[in-house]
Amino acid sequence: MNFLQKLRHACQANDSFLCVGLDPDPQLMPPETDVNEFVASVVEATSDLVTAYKINFAFFEAMGEDGFRHLNFARKCIPANIPIIADAKRADIGSTSCAYAKAIFEVMGFDAVTVSPYMGSDSIMPFISYADRGVFILCRTSNPGAKDFQDLLVTNGTSAVPLYQEVSRKAGEWNQHGNIGLVVGATWPQEIELIRKQNPDMPLLIPGIGAQGGDIKLVSRYAIGQENKMGIINVSRSIIYASCEKDYATAARVKAQEIRNQINVYRKQI
Amino acid sequence: MNFLQKLRHACQANDSFLCVGLDPDPQLMPPETDVNEFVASVVEATSDLVTAYKINFAFFEAMGEDGFRHLNFARKCIPANIPIIADAKRADIGSTSCAYAKAIFEVMGFDAVTVSPYMGSDSIMPFISYADRGVFILCRTSNPGAKDFQDLLVTNGTSAVPLYQEVSRKAGEWNQHGNIGLVVGATWPQEIELIRKQNPDMPLLIPGIGAQGGDIKLVSRYAIGQENKMGIINVSRSIIYASCEKDYATAARVKAQEIRNQINVYRKQI
Repeated sequence: MNFLQKLRHACQANDSFLCVGLDPDPQLMPPETDVNEFVASVVEATSDLVTAYKINFAFFEAMGEDGFRHLNFARKCIPANIPIIADAKRADIGSTSCAYAKAIFEVMGFDAVTVSPYMGSDSIMPFISYADRGVFILCRTSNPGAKDFQDLLVTNGTSAVPLYQEVSRKAGEWNQHGNIGLVVGATWPQEIELIRKQNPDMPLLIPGIGAQGGDIKLVSRYAIGQENKMGIINVSRSIIYASCEKDYATAARVKAQEIRNQINVYRKQI
Repeated sequence: MNFLQKLRHACQANDSFLCVGLDPDPQLMPPETDVNEFVASVVEATSDLVTAYKINFAFFEAMGEDGFRHLNFARKCIPANIPIIADAKRADIGSTSCAYAKAIFEVMGFDAVTVSPYMGSDSIMPFISYADRGVFILCRTSNPGAKDFQDLLVTNGTSAVPLYQEVSRKAGEWNQHGNIGLVVGATWPQEIELIRKQNPDMPLLIPGIGAQGGDIKLVSRYAIGQENKMGIINVSRSIIYASCEKDYATAARVKAQEIRNQINVYRKQI
């Protein structure tokens, strides 16, 4: 079963387009909570409500030597039927990207990864060549600085388009294995609409709901819609830090259920 | 002492603009060689010949749980007076970049890092805010796919410039702490000449000599020149894998000495 099939299965089984982002930050976690216990409890409380989990590498790397063990533990406590996305935003020259792809897909066993497009095709091909894994290319990111380069008009033959649209177009061109997806921030619903038209069948990974203020209504409609396209709406902080007390897992479940249900209402609206 | 001062000191002490890249790849290392022993021997054989070391995170991450320990060991066996660049090509939304910057500068104690510009200013600011550390932004990379996006003409007010030049311009604008540098591949000497003119005092980190076929003559002239600008010419594979036998450290020293001296000859030529 390849990544996209695994994603669709989890989506159907849990009636969910919600991805929960696991960003364990000691400054936001309930005081004196063990990282493994925190992650395991959040996963246990939400795994019947999600289509995927996304693990943010930065927060594990910031833990130093313990980070790799915590990351490995997090990956292993997620049920085997739920795909796990390595949010690592890697990419480098070919030989180095091969080593990153090996680390993420073979050594750590992730189902999918996020990559940065700046270095071009040969920096992304080593990831794509794992045909049974997913590769989400950054396209229009959720942060304010996204506009600095992603919105610049680039001349592409006769017409001028924003850089992020050229990335979206190239992603379609590179998609020989059908395993490419795009990262588009929920903070830019109009751009999601455009990208969805450009790539009707591509999975879109959409961060920016919750703490970053994205519009869940428009995003669910444009990215998923009545045809149930694979729009994977990621929420991290609003769910895993829904409570900073001992009841954090229950609170995470309540919030995950609420957002999962909201997406399911909004995606069907015209 | 900040990164740039440390870099200049090492450059003067060792009369060198050479950076040795540490990319320990089990498939290229002499058979049955321990990673720590390999790295320590290469460093011991070359540390009086370099202006910096660059550690490529991918090859350590591909080692799984042992990777962090090997990476930490590599960092610690480099003499304290030689700056160490974390070649990690990170960058994410602000809060995540904060965690990456903490991991690389505080937890692991690197002097500098490489970052990708695609996500814009707020993805890079958390790194730059460590004013005593160096931040090398990818500008024109050495790989063939660099042209896919970096060469696209972007409209910037009245004129159209390639994207990499707009990145170079923005880097100058963001450089309030004087700690930004740019990554420019040795495979594109004309672009190096342009970027050097745009940012006369910025350190340039230049990979692509050796295995990737960059032109050491032109690069030394354009990036460093008679004024001794901080062009840091990185060589990884041609030095550390100069021999795949037991004499690898001696062979690395011979090759490092040769390239260090070539740069010193070529940089003075008009």
